[in-house]
Amino acid sequence: MVGYSGGFPMLRNIPAILSPEILYSLRAMGHGDDLVIADCNFPAYSMGCKVHRLDGLSATQVLQAVLTLLPLDSFVKDPAHTMQVVGDAEATPEIFNEFQTLINDFADNPAPIATLERFAFYERAKTAFAVIQTGESRLYGNIILKKGVIPPN
Amino acid sequence: MVGYSGGFPMLRNIPAILSPEILYSLRAMGHGDDLVIADCNFPAYSMGCKVHRLDGLSATQVLQAVLTLLPLDSFVKDPAHTMQVVGDAEATPEIFNEFQTLINDFADNPAPIATLERFAFYERAKTAFAVIQTGESRLYGNIILKKGVIPPN
Amino acid sequence: MVGYSGGFPMLRNIPAILSPEILYSLRAMGHGDDLVIADCNFPAYSMGCKVHRLDGLSATQVLQAVLTLLPLDSFVKDPAHTMQVVGDAEATPEIFNEFQTLINDFADNPAPIATLERFAFYERAKTAFAVIQTGESRLYGNIILKKGVIPPN
Amino acid sequence: MVGYSGGFPMLRNIPAILSPEILYSLRAMGHGDDLVIADCNFPAYSMGCKVHRLDGLSATQVLQAVLTLLPLDSFVKDPAHTMQVVGDAEATPEIFNEFQTLINDFADNPAPIATLERFAFYERAKTAFAVIQTGESRLYGNIILKKGVIPPN
Amino acid sequence: MVGYSGGFPMLRNIPAILSPEILYSLRAMGHGDDLVIADCNFPAYSMGCKVHRLDGLSATQVLQAVLTLLPLDSFVKDPAHTMQVVGDAEATPEIFNEFQTLINDFADNPAPIATLERFAFYERAKTAFAVIQTGESRLYGNIILKKGVIPPN
Amino acid sequence: MVGYSGGFPMLRNIPAILSPEILYSLRAMGHGDDLVIADCNFPAYSMGCKVHRLDGLSATQVLQAVLTLLPLDSFVKDPAHTMQVVGDAEATPEIFNEFQTLINDFADNPAPIATLERFAFYERAKTAFAVIQTGESRLYGNIILKKGVIPPN
Amino acid sequence: MVGYSGGFPMLRNIPAILSPEILYSLRAMGHGDDLVIADCNFPAYSMGCKVHRLDGLSATQVLQAVLTLLPLDSFVKDPAHTMQVVGDAEATPEIFNEFQTLINDFADNPAPIATLERFAFYERAKTAFAVIQTGESRLYGNIILKKGVIPPN
Amino acid sequence: MVGYSGGFPMLRNIPAILSPEILYSLRAMGHGDDLVIADCNFPAYSMGCKVHRLDGLSATQVLQAVLTLLPLDSFVKDPAHTMQVVGDAEATPEIFNEFQTLINDFADNPAPIATLERFAFYERAKTAFAVIQTGESRLYGNIILKKGVIPPN
Amino acid sequence: MVGYSGGFPMLRNIPAILSPEILYSLRAMGHGDDLVIADCNFPAYSMGCKVHRLDGLSATQVLQAVLTLLPLDSFVKDPAHTMQVVGDAEATPEIFNEFQTLINDFADNPAPIATLERFAFYERAKTAFAVIQTGESRLYGNIILKKGVIPPN
Amino acid sequence: MVGYSGGFPMLRNIPAILSPEILYSLRAMGHGDDLVIADCNFPAYSMGCKVHRLDGLSATQVLQAVLTLLPLDSFVKDPAHTMQVVGDAEATPEIFNEFQTLINDFADNPAPIATLERFAFYERAKTAFAVIQTGESRLYGNIILKKGVIPPN
Repeated sequence: MVGYSGGFPMLRNIPAILSPEILYSLRAMGHGDDLVIADCNFPAYSMGCKVHRLDGLSATQVLQAVLTLLPLDSFVKDPAHTMQVVGDAEATPEIFNEFQTLINDFADNPAPIATLERFAFYERAKTAFAVIQTGESRLYGNIILKKGVIPPN
Repeated sequence: MVGYSGGFPMLRNIPAILSPEILYSLRAMGHGDDLVIADCNFPAYSMGCKVHRLDGLSATQVLQAVLTLLPLDSFVKDPAHTMQVVGDAEATPEIFNEFQTLINDFADNPAPIATLERFAFYERAKTAFAVIQTGESRLYGNIILKKGVIPPN
Repeated sequence: MVGYSGGFPMLRNIPAILSPEILYSLRAMGHGDDLVIADCNFPAYSMGCKVHRLDGLSATQVLQAVLTLLPLDSFVKDPAHTMQVVGDAEATPEIFNEFQTLINDFADNPAPIATLERFAFYERAKTAFAVIQTGESRLYGNIILKKGVIPPN
Repeated sequence: MVGYSGGFPMLRNIPAILSPEILYSLRAMGHGDDLVIADCNFPAYSMGCKVHRLDGLSATQVLQAVLTLLPLDSFVKDPAHTMQVVGDAEATPEIFNEFQTLINDFADNPAPIATLERFAFYERAKTAFAVIQTGESRLYGNIILKKGVIPPN
Repeated sequence: MVGYSGGFPMLRNIPAILSPEILYSLRAMGHGDDLVIADCNFPAYSMGCKVHRLDGLSATQVLQAVLTLLPLDSFVKDPAHTMQVVGDAEATPEIFNEFQTLINDFADNPAPIATLERFAFYERAKTAFAVIQTGESRLYGNIILKKGVIPPN
Repeated sequence: MVGYSGGFPMLRNIPAILSPEILYSLRAMGHGDDLVIADCNFPAYSMGCKVHRLDGLSATQVLQAVLTLLPLDSFVKDPAHTMQVVGDAEATPEIFNEFQTLINDFADNPAPIATLERFAFYERAKTAFAVIQTGESRLYGNIILKKGVIPPN
Repeated sequence: MVGYSGGFPMLRNIPAILSPEILYSLRAMGHGDDLVIADCNFPAYSMGCKVHRLDGLSATQVLQAVLTLLPLDSFVKDPAHTMQVVGDAEATPEIFNEFQTLINDFADNPAPIATLERFAFYERAKTAFAVIQTGESRLYGNIILKKGVIPPN
Repeated sequence: MVGYSGGFPMLRNIPAILSPEILYSLRAMGHGDDLVIADCNFPAYSMGCKVHRLDGLSATQVLQAVLTLLPLDSFVKDPAHTMQVVGDAEATPEIFNEFQTLINDFADNPAPIATLERFAFYERAKTAFAVIQTGESRLYGNIILKKGVIPPN
Repeated sequence: MVGYSGGFPMLRNIPAILSPEILYSLRAMGHGDDLVIADCNFPAYSMGCKVHRLDGLSATQVLQAVLTLLPLDSFVKDPAHTMQVVGDAEATPEIFNEFQTLINDFADNPAPIATLERFAFYERAKTAFAVIQTGESRLYGNIILKKGVIPPN
Repeated sequence: MVGYSGGFPMLRNIPAILSPEILYSLRAMGHGDDLVIADCNFPAYSMGCKVHRLDGLSATQVLQAVLTLLPLDSFVKDPAHTMQVVGDAEATPEIFNEFQTLINDFADNPAPIATLERFAFYERAKTAFAVIQTGESRLYGNIILKKGVIPPN
């Protein structure tokens, strides 16, 4: 299976990979609601919230597309969290760096990514608005984003 | 009740008046699917398709917002239709001109608006993907748009 | 996007911006039930109660329309609450004054508006009958109303 | 069982006998949609449309309450129809006169009531937006109303 | 709006004001299940149980009709409760007397009506089988009935 | 398995064998709606209408109970039909006589029972309001009743 | 209403009074699941589990039919319970003896029936797989059965 | 994967392979209703009727189990049909003989099996009560059975 | 947005891009059922059948994955169809060649791809089992596959 | 009923006995989710999670098929559990050995099977993703599997 370079948008100004259901969730979320972008191994359906699928896409592709629309929360210190490596809470898999670079480059309110222990991450995910399950095959390819507000100018 | 100037977007780059459900429909529609933007008197629920509501907004406000996202169909001669005035098929209420100006200014593929007799308009609307019922109080404030494609560059 | 002055009623004697679903809720609510009128950033769908949308309208437009129909509760001291500014519980954003003026002018039982801390406001909202999410973009543009009774004359 | 004089409104300015579901339908109906107010013997559930119940009330009580909100259609000659007496198409039961008086007194666009043969009445009712089944026990206590528009002033 | 004297039964031997849904509930209830007959201000939809509506009818009309079918529980001392006047637990609004008279005249097992404090009444109602919301406009026009058994002869 | 003599009513004045769902249907039916009382072999679920079950009871037990509540239609010549014996349209199985006797003794408007050929009976049943499937094991133990009106006195 | 002697089976080898829904439940139940056979006064719908109805049949008729299919649990000492008479826990109404005789004669694993206090019986019933509500009019005509396994031979 | 000899019944006297849903359908079917037992290639979900699955079992295993419960129709000449081999309407695959042997040995009313052309078989299946999709891998392993009645003795 | 090379399988031996819902459909389809793999402009939701989404993936990626599981029909001459270019029925866009190469390389029963006129393609798609909407942005990136059987060895 | 040797796959490379619904669940499960393969006596429907049925098949047949697709969890010491024999926690029924052999031969990460006391097994099963109820008639023929990840190569 060969790589595929994106796709043309079905709507003007909106990244093509965001499905109707995902647009719905991004728009319906309010200040402080969480969104989980999950890898292919994440037990998404057991979280009890809505599951969107983007099979075959990487978590980083999805994060970039989401950040073009979603404001990050500036009311809290840590608007983004990844899952700690089991048994090595300080480890920083390569994908963590990619996540951070994307937030630095595309978020409206860039902030350092914090981490949560595996089962704490699951507990947090259970209160999320939705999970987007990607095809990301790299381990620990999960991130939680907290939606912010777009202040009046 | 006084006028209200729009609102700030809940998502970056997307007009604030488009609700989660409407974004869903605009994105889910395919080539050749129709969207009806209807005035407050239109019998939307009797068309048998999905109804979205934007109470209190004018049809022209909604048309402008929709056109920023939705490509118009260039495969057909008439990608937009209004409803003919009953008993005077050639009449051009002021709102027709406003619709045409918005299409000229905001559509990707501007085209002249055609018209349909009242009951032909209803029949066409029954096959539409969705109706957005606005608060438009001007009579004949209805328009049908056919979605086009965004060609690969 | 330009302002729009209201709209003509689709029913006689009823403000045009109140949708079928909102009329349903206002009528079905009983003595002591709460209604939340929320700004565009409010996490309405996470409250677990019914969500009505009035995209593109201000919270003050909606409050005025609601008060023409809904009696305020006179059995409690504080039939209306706004959300306190985070970090400054005594602050009074301009919209608070507008809310109070509308209650003074349009409510059957005018009363001073009380306030609730942000997360206390969320907890209260979770027990509400419904949330009307408006397009209000001013921060802290949220208010909770408790329905009263119309006494026999 | 003794008579009962009405009831106080649960909402300001709205007749108390109109339930949440009925308000929903009256508001959701559009130009040209039909509403059936039916007696207690009408086979409402076999019409295939939505059924609202107002048990214990007369059809005339309900007609009066409905007319305070619903505009009658002025685009057609006959915006109201009753069911002809079986075997005597010209008969005018007393309740027809009461219906006509209420329309004369309370409708925005009073018009003479036309009649439909029993089974033609059923066919018409099958395309209605909703049926309100009352407790009216007088035979032929049924009427169909076509909703009109409220023109901008 | 003028009073209306009842209506003829749609079924032989059954009071005409009891709708299909109410008959269903009365028949499905078992020994010890509670039924709430509520006034027009009661927050019926917030109780979490089934809601039946009899708009426009008084609570006393409905109580009389229900008692012709429903046996009262003789296993408990207090098979019927009204809601205490807020701030005056011993008050006896006129409607309490009417309720008692109807129970004395129509119940199979007449018993004195007991009372519950307002919020205790709500808690009890949340465990009821169903609420019938009437158009009763007199304050405190609510009563809870516990269904009994009809012993074999 | 031995016979069982009836049962005591769960509601006063209503035959005990009529379940909540059946009471619902009998009450919801209107003038001209059909009810099918069917034997244990009748293909009830293939008729496309609502199915009620009274397993273990005979069709004659059920007919008697139904007639104590349901008025028969006096607007048509034949308000009741049985299914003709296949291959012998004039045959009169014993159960036809029992049906006729029950109608004579318990109906408000007794009338002679007419018959329909087997597949005509099925076509008629497909337009019925509901089918009550009994445990009747005698062949041809089916009857269709048309509901009438109870005229005002 | 006269007695009726059973009925012929609609399926070979299966008692005719067991409806499609009851067969479903008996087959779907697993080891240790409870079934309640209840009298006509039992508050079945308030137990929160599935309700099957066999109106007009006695609890003993139903118990016999059920035991021809359902194995009783031999892993517990008390696979069957009746409800104690209120105020006389040692009383043995006649129907208890009939239940015991049927278990002795028809169960695969006959065992003495134990008893539960009224409200303990209700608590147990709330965890049951299903309730079969019969037309049994004798008081205390309720029994809970625990399903066992059929061991490989 | 090795063969597996059956299984012990979960209910007394009922073949173990018949699931709760299948028992439901067999019991709910009436005189003249059709049941399809289909091979693993049959387009069951496109028939528009209920689909039951018995993956991993042969059509002959399922036919035998079904015939122990289901009476075959004796009112028609051909109560069972197989699908003709495409291009060879007279062919008799080995499985046809096995089907016939099972009907001869287990049916209450044995009859010769008739055949239907492939697309006629599909049309017939679209009107069936249900399809049981087996794991049968032999081509043309499909059979339609028409349910009969069990006459009173 | 950069390309992404596939993903590791979430199940052994199954292409990772096939979601749970798509696996369901591929397995549930029977002999002769059609599957549509559609480009991003295809009006999938207007076809009236089930829609699966694989946003961001090309139609060729999806075709390859599907062919590793799905047998092509060998009972018909043309088991695969693409949509003809509007106005040039003989045109062969580059993606047609890629489709053909994939069928040649991965199908169990390779066959030449036939074509259908645009609206004939839509009519055929309306009878399909499901549509997989991909992110394919090349025009005419649609293909219909007919499922075959895997013969016993 | 005679044994049956498997079946040909309806999809290439996938065991034929895995139904559409089971494929869905296997694919949707994530890292750490549990799957229960249960015998015919297991109270599957009382666990509160999804139930898949494979009537007539043994638990060992099903385990083998599942292991060809499902990775076992290597993050925990005990990725598989059986239910302890009641009253003899150390007993090892023959089927335990067969389960162990299949895991040794077919799992990607073979591990020794641990055991859980009967009611602890039920508690664990209540948090599972799904239960597959087989026709396994041997007692204690139940096993819980925890899904692992397939690491990137």
